[in-house]
Amino acid sequence: MTVVKTDGGNFFEDFEVGRELLHATPRTVTEGDVALYTALYGPRFAPQSSDIFAMDMGFEAAPIDDWLVFHIVFARSVPDISLNAVANLGYGEGRFGAVVYPGDTLSARSRVIGVKENSNRKTGIVYVRTTGENQRGEAVLEYVRWVMVRKRDAASTAPETIVPELAESVGLDALHVPEGLNFGGYHLGAAGSPHVWDDYRVGEKIDHVDGVTVEEAEHQMATRLYQNTARVHFNQHLEKDGRFARRLVYGGHVISLTRALSFNGLANAFKVVALNGGRHVSPLFAGHTVYAWSEVLDKFELPGREDVGALRLRTTGVKDRCCGDFPFKSDDGAYDPSVVLDVDYTALMARRA
Amino acid sequence: MTVVKTDGGNFFEDFEVGRELLHATPRTVTEGDVALYTALYGPRFAPQSSDIFAMDMGFEAAPIDDWLVFHIVFARSVPDISLNAVANLGYGEGRFGAVVYPGDTLSARSRVIGVKENSNRKTGIVYVRTTGENQRGEAVLEYVRWVMVRKRDAASTAPETIVPELAESVGLDALHVPEGLNFGGYHLGAAGSPHVWDDYRVGEKIDHVDGVTVEEAEHQMATRLYQNTARVHFNQHLEKDGRFARRLVYGGHVISLTRALSFNGLANAFKVVALNGGRHVSPLFAGHTVYAWSEVLDKFELPGREDVGALRLRTTGVKDRCCGDFPFKSDDGAYDPSVVLDVDYTALMARRA
Amino acid sequence: MTVVKTDGGNFFEDFEVGRELLHATPRTVTEGDVALYTALYGPRFAPQSSDIFAMDMGFEAAPIDDWLVFHIVFARSVPDISLNAVANLGYGEGRFGAVVYPGDTLSARSRVIGVKENSNRKTGIVYVRTTGENQRGEAVLEYVRWVMVRKRDAASTAPETIVPELAESVGLDALHVPEGLNFGGYHLGAAGSPHVWDDYRVGEKIDHVDGVTVEEAEHQMATRLYQNTARVHFNQHLEKDGRFARRLVYGGHVISLTRALSFNGLANAFKVVALNGGRHVSPLFAGHTVYAWSEVLDKFELPGREDVGALRLRTTGVKDRCCGDFPFKSDDGAYDPSVVLDVDYTALMARRA
Repeated sequence: MTVVKTDGGNFFEDFEVGRELLHATPRTVTEGDVALYTALYGPRFAPQSSDIFAMDMGFEAAPIDDWLVFHIVFARSVPDISLNAVANLGYGEGRFGAVVYPGDTLSARSRVIGVKENSNRKTGIVYVRTTGENQRGEAVLEYVRWVMVRKRDAASTAPETIVPELAESVGLDALHVPEGLNFGGYHLGAAGSPHVWDDYRVGEKIDHVDGVTVEEAEHQMATRLYQNTARVHFNQHLEKDGRFARRLVYGGHVISLTRALSFNGLANAFKVVALNGGRHVSPLFAGHTVYAWSEVLDKFELPGREDVGALRLRTTGVKDRCCGDFPFKSDDGAYDPSVVLDVDYTALMARRA
Repeated sequence: MTVVKTDGGNFFEDFEVGRELLHATPRTVTEGDVALYTALYGPRFAPQSSDIFAMDMGFEAAPIDDWLVFHIVFARSVPDISLNAVANLGYGEGRFGAVVYPGDTLSARSRVIGVKENSNRKTGIVYVRTTGENQRGEAVLEYVRWVMVRKRDAASTAPETIVPELAESVGLDALHVPEGLNFGGYHLGAAGSPHVWDDYRVGEKIDHVDGVTVEEAEHQMATRLYQNTARVHFNQHLEKDGRFARRLVYGGHVISLTRALSFNGLANAFKVVALNGGRHVSPLFAGHTVYAWSEVLDKFELPGREDVGALRLRTTGVKDRCCGDFPFKSDDGAYDPSVVLDVDYTALMARRA
Repeated sequence: MTVVKTDGGNFFEDFEVGRELLHATPRTVTEGDVALYTALYGPRFAPQSSDIFAMDMGFEAAPIDDWLVFHIVFARSVPDISLNAVANLGYGEGRFGAVVYPGDTLSARSRVIGVKENSNRKTGIVYVRTTGENQRGEAVLEYVRWVMVRKRDAASTAPETIVPELAESVGLDALHVPEGLNFGGYHLGAAGSPHVWDDYRVGEKIDHVDGVTVEEAEHQMATRLYQNTARVHFNQHLEKDGRFARRLVYGGHVISLTRALSFNGLANAFKVVALNGGRHVSPLFAGHTVYAWSEVLDKFELPGREDVGALRLRTTGVKDRCCGDFPFKSDDGAYDPSVVLDVDYTALMARRA
């Protein structure tokens, strides 16, 4: 007998709470990845763009964009966690750790922290905490995500429901501020905006103005760059008969698009340190144009620092609709149909000297 | 008088058996090329993805993907060999040599080893042996290809027919196993599959399951990355009135797509060492979805090695059709119309410790 | 009160002659950028392709393509100069300076050198001299461009008209020939052509033969790679109701396409040293196929050099039309409707040993 060599992925029944999954294919991140990331999204945050600017701030070199780190870590988990997923439901308790530089090698593992069978008995929700590490075993990112996964067999017995309690946002004491950062030579002109942490107020809304139309070749190249193999992004022959009749854009592609757009209004928010929560609201397809706006949810001083503070931000990604009127939810709590992304994150920002 | 400065390429009459052609434009391969290759195909073989994994195996760093080496060497030969080609007919006797790393510079030359005029007197078949070398003059790849080339003048005298005898496959003693490889720390979990050389049997067929739809921007970027200038891939203004009314996808693009798909089933086939034969069966165009399946044609122990073996594999690339029933040839020997690629190669694979 | 954080760009009234603008976002150029540039355009000039070839000529490594330097410097100026531009009218007095290598960090600044309100009072022409510098403060590029910019308020008072006098071409004494270049080991075969400076005559026209069709994903990725944020290139949702009903291809994309095509005929024109003038004649859109031809406008010996000379070239970019009959202008001076680019530049070329 020949054992089937192809991997069909895990089903709901395979996710026992407490199970640890070591994900395959360690990945060295390079300057080549940075160039592609720039070509795919066009980010302009100064420390990620310039070795000189970054080193003047105390980084070793231009750090890898935080969302590129996220996509690479996330992608490693796809073959084990979400190959048989119906939907990627949400994220929480995300913390960025050790700064990633070109040449670092990332690997990832996940622990199952919750399961809940759906009432239709065909699917269930799986909660995992995924950790990405560099070659020295330092955590570069940790986050929880939950995903709806098919059962192998509708008749199989439901496991005990365990739903993890997640913090509403990452606490101030859990934020990782890179060591050695200094803002003595931080040049607002080179960074692209005079507006610093001191100038933002809680509740402030910022329309990021510009929109960018997504092409099939772009999101496919991005998603492959991360080595994310989720099938719905790549196969028109199959998807033409699927739920949407087209290839679905990887949700993370939208996160990076909105982050790049947010430069216009948040140029000094130079580093993401926490992913408090996130949700891919409605699907995005090639041909759609993505706009974005942000709201300042909260602002924090950092213990012992007068040069850098943190902003908690919610960025809303919107399709085919300008954001001058900040589309979000209606009174009954339903998202506006144009909303594709609702991501709640914390970023570091320079303070006024 | 002004000499025409543009190069119109060679015609059938220009290929005298024994002629040596030194191809232009040496090419330094970089981490940037690796990132693009990843974005274009999404390969996940661990040593090519991770410097750490590669060095643990005895490589100097993550080696350049063997097919990327192939495409770069091949592309150098296009202006001299196939600018006036009607069709790229086949490959054989391909051997990969010195491992290529980022920073290496590749150049190429070809020797004409056969010619045969076609009965229509308008075209002929040219056989060349192409060699790619690194900056130290070490062969990184050598292969034979044959191609149908236009005659400059139908009335010109036919040369003596010389058709080289080619080995049906590259012999075991001709395979180049990189020196210093060790599998003591080879981690099957990180490599992505528990299935090693010992587990495969001759005749075994593997459906690689997934399919990927090709976009115009993708194959154009790939083909330009290699500096391949064959006109049929780039010029819709001309091709709209041509044989297919559209741009043709470079055949090598399909080889790399199928190799990346083959990870699901062959994750531990970490290095291609021989191209025994290959044929681009039917043309591929943007919009098509490529699937693949492989058959184990043969398996070899390697002299003096108990840690690594070789598999001779045939990978069939298929368009717009799943490969669950392994489409190939009908009883009369004709290929199924869905088949786009038939490539016969030998790969190294870890053995069970 | 909350200050609006997004940057709406400068209007005609903001450009006072003599004003200096320091542009944001310094940019480290890497081997990743080179790989993308190769994938987007397919250039084959040997020194930019091979570290070995370049070092044999006296370069430190493969230099960054001159037009890639141009695009990166240009892009830095967009948010300050042309965010409210109606049209990019022309270039002149462009000089490339210090050679740029991977790892260099570029920043840019511009000085306003002329203004002229248009008779409609809604727009005006702004002339700026833009300088790009590396991390050592050495100029890598300086050029003048003029651009039609919207007024904030049609009623505002017109400034005094100042139109700078620009040289018709960059003088021989102002050309920067990299120090240490030597052609002792310059290999014509590896460079791809036997035709050297000595072989070209003034007035000679060269059809570059090939054409390349532009895809939306390609020009968007290119333009983002440079961090050029001009809105007309990216937003189909907005542009569908705009002047052309489609996204406009960044004019610089065409310059790089024609430069890559010009390899066939000008393979030894290994380095651009001056941009004497340039004009984007008619707009280009995805789906168009770009062809090119060049005319030798002048040729110069360089003081004290017998190994290298300069050619002044005009390259004409053409859409959806072969260039065998060198389309340019009709007798009344109007451009042929197929012409998209008219660029006048000076390149260095090896002389016969």
